[in-house]
Amino acid sequence: MSFKPLGDRVLVNPLAKEEMSKGGIVLPDTVKEKPQEGKVIAVGVGKFDDGTLVPMEVKVGQTVMFSKYGPTEIKVDGEEMYVLSESDILGVIE
Amino acid sequence: MSFKPLGDRVLVNPLAKEEMSKGGIVLPDTVKEKPQEGKVIAVGVGKFDDGTLVPMEVKVGQTVMFSKYGPTEIKVDGEEMYVLSESDILGVIE
Amino acid sequence: MSFKPLGDRVLVNPLAKEEMSKGGIVLPDTVKEKPQEGKVIAVGVGKFDDGTLVPMEVKVGQTVMFSKYGPTEIKVDGEEMYVLSESDILGVIE
Amino acid sequence: MSFKPLGDRVLVNPLAKEEMSKGGIVLPDTVKEKPQEGKVIAVGVGKFDDGTLVPMEVKVGQTVMFSKYGPTEIKVDGEEMYVLSESDILGVIE
Amino acid sequence: MSFKPLGDRVLVNPLAKEEMSKGGIVLPDTVKEKPQEGKVIAVGVGKFDDGTLVPMEVKVGQTVMFSKYGPTEIKVDGEEMYVLSESDILGVIE
Amino acid sequence: MSFKPLGDRVLVNPLAKEEMSKGGIVLPDTVKEKPQEGKVIAVGVGKFDDGTLVPMEVKVGQTVMFSKYGPTEIKVDGEEMYVLSESDILGVIE
Amino acid sequence: MSFKPLGDRVLVNPLAKEEMSKGGIVLPDTVKEKPQEGKVIAVGVGKFDDGTLVPMEVKVGQTVMFSKYGPTEIKVDGEEMYVLSESDILGVIE
Repeated sequence: MSFKPLGDRVLVNPLAKEEMSKGGIVLPDTVKEKPQEGKVIAVGVGKFDDGTLVPMEVKVGQTVMFSKYGPTEIKVDGEEMYVLSESDILGVIE
Repeated sequence: MSFKPLGDRVLVNPLAKEEMSKGGIVLPDTVKEKPQEGKVIAVGVGKFDDGTLVPMEVKVGQTVMFSKYGPTEIKVDGEEMYVLSESDILGVIE
Repeated sequence: MSFKPLGDRVLVNPLAKEEMSKGGIVLPDTVKEKPQEGKVIAVGVGKFDDGTLVPMEVKVGQTVMFSKYGPTEIKVDGEEMYVLSESDILGVIE
Repeated sequence: MSFKPLGDRVLVNPLAKEEMSKGGIVLPDTVKEKPQEGKVIAVGVGKFDDGTLVPMEVKVGQTVMFSKYGPTEIKVDGEEMYVLSESDILGVIE
Repeated sequence: MSFKPLGDRVLVNPLAKEEMSKGGIVLPDTVKEKPQEGKVIAVGVGKFDDGTLVPMEVKVGQTVMFSKYGPTEIKVDGEEMYVLSESDILGVIE
Repeated sequence: MSFKPLGDRVLVNPLAKEEMSKGGIVLPDTVKEKPQEGKVIAVGVGKFDDGTLVPMEVKVGQTVMFSKYGPTEIKVDGEEMYVLSESDILGVIE
Repeated sequence: MSFKPLGDRVLVNPLAKEEMSKGGIVLPDTVKEKPQEGKVIAVGVGKFDDGTLVPMEVKVGQTVMFSKYGPTEIKVDGEEMYVLSESDILGVIE
C-alpha cells in the first residue's frame, strides 16, 4: 500500500527521538514531547493559487521540521505517519 | 438514480471496516470509529479559482482517505454515502 | 408572478416527502425533517470571480440535493420555495 | 432632493403590505413583519472586483425581494427608504 | 493647516442638524443623534485592488450620507471633522 | 543606528503635545492622551498586492495623523518611535 | 547541520541583551524581556502571491527587529533560534 498526498500535502515519517538532529522545536517541560522532525515520504502536486499551480518546495527524502499543530496522524501499513500541508513545514534540515 | 456532485465535490462510498487498508486516521479510543476511507463514485467538474476552472485531482474508482469532519452524509438508493469537498481528501491509497 | 434569482442564486421548489428519491441527507431522528431535495425553477446569471463571470452549473428542471442550512424560504404565488446559492447545492440527482 | 447610492448599493422604496405580491420571505409568527419587497429607485455604478468594475444586475423600476438583515433605513424627503448592497437582494419579481 | 486623506479615505465636515436635508439615517429614539450627513472637504487618491488603483467616486463639495460607525473623529484647525473610508459612505445627496 | 522599515511599514517620530497642529484625533477625557501626530522618518518599499508592488503614498518629512491602535512602539537610539503600517495612517497634515 | 527556511520564513539568531542596539520594542516592566533583535542566518525563497513569487526583502547577515509574537523557537545544533515569517519583521537595523 502506498499513500499519495493530494494538493499541497506532504506525507512525513516522524523521526524517533534518538534519530533527531540536535535541533527541534523548543517545548515547555510540561508538554508531552512529540516528534517534530520527519522524513518526507511523498509530496502532492501542489496547490492552485489564483489559477496557477504553485510547485512544491520540499522533496521526497528530505528531513523537515514542522509545527506540532499542523499534522493529521494516519496509519500506512500499520506505521504511524503524518499528513501535513507544506505551509505547516518550517524548514528543511540538511 | 445517480448523484452528480457539483463544483469540487466528490461522492464517496465509505469502506466497511474489514475492507479498509491497514491504514486510516489515528483516533483516540474514546471516539466512535467511522469509516475514513472510501471509494470515489463520482466527481464534480472542479471549482473556479480567480476565474479559472481548477481541474479535479481524484478520479472515479480511487480509494481515498479523508478527515471525518469534512463529509455530509447522504443516501443514494438507500445506501449511505459521503459528499465532500476535494480539499477535505488527504490523499489517495494505492 | 415570476421570481428571477440574482447572482449565483437558484430558486428551488422543494419536493414533498413522497416524491423524493430514495436518497436525501441523513438526519438524526431528533431533527424535524425538511425537504432537502428540490426541483430547480430558475437560476441566476452567475457570480463574478476576479472580474470574470463564473457560469452556473445547475439547470432549470434538474432535481438537486442541498444542505438544509443554505436556503432562505420565500413565497412565490403563495407557494413555499427556496432561494439558495449554487455553492450550497451538493449535487444533481439523475 | 435625490439620493445617489455609491458602489454596488441600491436605494429601494419598501412596498406597503397591501401592494406586495403573493410572495415574500416566510417569517415565523413571532417576528414583527417588515416589508421585504421594494421598488428600485436608484442604483450605484457597481463595485470593483480585482480591478474590474462589476456591472449592476438590478435596474431602476424593478421590484426586488431582499433579506431583512441587509438594508440600512434612511429618510429621503421624509420618506423611509432602504439602502442595501446588491448582494443582499435575493431576486427580481416580474 | 490642511488635511490630505490617504488611500480611499475621505475628510467630511459634518452638517449641523438645521443644515441637514429632510433625510438622514433612521435612528431609534434612545440613540443620541449624531450628524450623519456631511460635506466632502478632501478625498484620497483611492485604494489598490489587485494591483490596480480604484478611482474615488465621491468628489470635493458633495454632500454625503454615511453610517455612524464608520468615521474617526479628528480636529482640523480646532473644528471637528470626520475621516472615513469611501466604502462607509452610503450615497450622495443632490 | 538607523531603522529601515520593511514592506508597507513607516517609522514615525511622534510629535510632542506643544508641537502638534490644532488638530488631532478626538479622544474622550478618560483616555490617556498619546501623540497621534508624527513626523515620517523612514518608509518601506511597499507591499505586494496580487503580485504587484504597491508604491507608498507617504514620504519622509511629512507630518501624519494616525489611529492610536496601529503603531508598535520601538526605541531607536534611545528615542521612542512608532512603526506602523501605511494603512493605519489617516492622512497627511500640510 | 543547517536549517533552510521554507516559503517566506526567516531563520534568526536572537541577539543577547548586551549585543543589542540602543533600540528594541518598548515593553511594560511586567513583561519578561525577550530578545527582539536578531541576526538573519537564512531566508526562504519567498511566498507565492496570486501565482507570482514575491522576493524576500531581508538578507542573510542583516540585524532585524521583530514582534515577539511572531517567532517559533527551534534549536539548531543545540542553539536556540527563531523561525518567523518575513511579514513579522518590523524592519532592518543598520
